[in-house]
Amino acid sequence: MPTDRLTRQMAFLVEADKLKTIVRRTPLTDRSRLENSAEHSWHLGLAAVALREYAPDGVNMLRVLELLAVHDLVEIDAGDTFAYDSRANVTKESRERAAADRIFGILPIDQARRLRADWEEFEAFETRESRVANALDRLQALLQNMAAGGGSWSAHGVTKRQVLERMAPVQAALPDVWPFVVDVIDRFCASGAIGNDLER
Amino acid sequence: MPTDRLTRQMAFLVEADKLKTIVRRTPLTDRSRLENSAEHSWHLGLAAVALREYAPDGVNMLRVLELLAVHDLVEIDAGDTFAYDSRANVTKESRERAAADRIFGILPIDQARRLRADWEEFEAFETRESRVANALDRLQALLQNMAAGGGSWSAHGVTKRQVLERMAPVQAALPDVWPFVVDVIDRFCASGAIGNDLER
Repeated sequence: MPTDRLTRQMAFLVEADKLKTIVRRTPLTDRSRLENSAEHSWHLGLAAVALREYAPDGVNMLRVLELLAVHDLVEIDAGDTFAYDSRANVTKESRERAAADRIFGILPIDQARRLRADWEEFEAFETRESRVANALDRLQALLQNMAAGGGSWSAHGVTKRQVLERMAPVQAALPDVWPFVVDVIDRFCASGAIGNDLER
Repeated sequence: MPTDRLTRQMAFLVEADKLKTIVRRTPLTDRSRLENSAEHSWHLGLAAVALREYAPDGVNMLRVLELLAVHDLVEIDAGDTFAYDSRANVTKESRERAAADRIFGILPIDQARRLRADWEEFEAFETRESRVANALDRLQALLQNMAAGGGSWSAHGVTKRQVLERMAPVQAALPDVWPFVVDVIDRFCASGAIGNDLER
């Protein structure tokens, strides 16, 4: 018979399936629907693999991939909080902490602590691995919006100042990727998809 | 301006978004829809993190996560081939090789070679990392079908012999997880969701 430990781990993986039903604000590139947080999380892992040469020397890529695998699980209970919704972001932390208690708590206690610590590390922006993982999270949303012709920027009246602030972790953690980000923002400002509130 | 190298890497990541539209035969646990290959790939990465203690000593988990990140990308062109469809599996290899040429070929050439080699490693079942990654791929489908009350087994008249054969990589690479698999198969045979063609 399976052990209690294994049963808990399997229950956690079954629970995690629900992340596939959590909808984000960013569309698929073909604009057929909005992206969910599970497929988004995979896309970040692939981005980590494809863009690792831009990460600072000494970054532990296994840790980056681990942080990315768990970083959105709390959304199963707390939902996806839209980056540009300042009101929802006020309650985000407490909602997500309660979610982390429940979801990671399905695991055996040593693992619950470890995976919860991974999530907290991602959120804290303090380690190099967290900074790279967060930069990829920001960058992927930019790619989705870019490929969908404006995406959540045009749908929600987002401005250049907001996008630049949101993308700042890319400049910090993946500086060689930053010119690409600036180029995309400038193009979508010129097209009107991003409101230009920084015009002279 | 972004370099040609970075532009290719970003084009690859945009192309990869299409994996979110490739539908598998396994349902979500709430049975609301079938799973797509992108969210499936994330779930495998999470399973690697949650179940790593069952992997043989010395397995390189970074490599396992890399293989999992790229393992289904060829389905963007080749589609998901149902594991229990023996006719479609005859043409699977040539369809997927052509897809790999095109999709990995979007990347800069050194990276195209490397990520294609990762996909080939996954497919070949030869390295320890490939065996663990494939075992997780099989196990996750079992979990989805289990949690959905039968899933693609009952929908497609799959038999015990077929499921045992399909799950054999779990026994080989994650032997301590095998009792869980056998227990699930026996329960779903008893309920009739898996046809019992091995009954005495």
